[in-house]
Amino acid sequence: MTSPLGPGPSAGTVRELVRSHVRAIDDFPTPGVLFRDITPLLADADAFNTVIDYLAKAVRSAGADLVVGIEARGFILAAPVAIVAGVGFIPLRKPGKLPGVTLRESYALEYGEAALEMHEDAIVHGTRVVLMDDVLATGGTAGAAAGLLERAGADVVKTLFLIELASLEGRATLGPRPMEAILTLP
Amino acid sequence: MTSPLGPGPSAGTVRELVRSHVRAIDDFPTPGVLFRDITPLLADADAFNTVIDYLAKAVRSAGADLVVGIEARGFILAAPVAIVAGVGFIPLRKPGKLPGVTLRESYALEYGEAALEMHEDAIVHGTRVVLMDDVLATGGTAGAAAGLLERAGADVVKTLFLIELASLEGRATLGPRPMEAILTLP
Repeated sequence: MTSPLGPGPSAGTVRELVRSHVRAIDDFPTPGVLFRDITPLLADADAFNTVIDYLAKAVRSAGADLVVGIEARGFILAAPVAIVAGVGFIPLRKPGKLPGVTLRESYALEYGEAALEMHEDAIVHGTRVVLMDDVLATGGTAGAAAGLLERAGADVVKTLFLIELASLEGRATLGPRPMEAILTLP
Repeated sequence: MTSPLGPGPSAGTVRELVRSHVRAIDDFPTPGVLFRDITPLLADADAFNTVIDYLAKAVRSAGADLVVGIEARGFILAAPVAIVAGVGFIPLRKPGKLPGVTLRESYALEYGEAALEMHEDAIVHGTRVVLMDDVLATGGTAGAAAGLLERAGADVVKTLFLIELASLEGRATLGPRPMEAILTLP
């Protein structure tokens, strides 16, 4: 039902597409934070399609059986990537949102704590999954998500992002797991 | 980049696919509520793909320029439908999540109040949009979302759901706006 995923535009072309369709907004959500807003990319059908196609190729080349998205912006990328790659989708959600029996992983925020949950029966042991989110910042969320998936029996064969904010060193939080981002910003 | 969307399975076949891949969970999120859990559908690549294809055809036949998803489960359906239909995607979010200047619409819940926000500049006046969510229950959320889109200048040409819970009469909340659901439950 999806396209055969031809060669498509180069990594450099897709990187410039992301750069030109993501806007930086000062002091959001808190003073001193420069927020990367992906909504202009999503609203542009051609740009959105090109980026999803590119990410779906990364999922296919990783030989993944499932794509996992982190609530909520991660869903907007991971669900279409799953469709185009022809694999299933699993959501990682904020606490209390999933109705079945869940596994939970807590992690530290700048102030306080957050947690992610997944359905305990969502993953068959040894399933190859790609974990996706829009932005890799400090890696707190992504690291907790990868740990949660591994506790559930998944093999996290890749972590995949639109944008990596390199100065926040999120890549280190992910350890040896393969990581890919379309655009790396300082 | 997406497929030409051939005729595909019939409405009846897709309806049975949704029925067989959505599980009912008692007393979630509160006692007395029978929750419809779509995660088994999402995890099954073939079923998820068939349903997204079917919904994308409904978007195309409505002549829509944009698909709008309601946070958070609506994103999981609306974003891939936008990709397969070849149109852009706009998220309606919970308060405080969108970084730009927003419009807000509040609505009543069983107890208390909730609200949705969208970027004020997300829609060009007269743009034809399809509003999507997973389940139409009382229609509180969907009605507020449609009102918000119209305040922003959109023409809501269709509202589109996986499942309609008919006894909750959400359809009435949507007024004369065209509404379609794959599966209607009592």
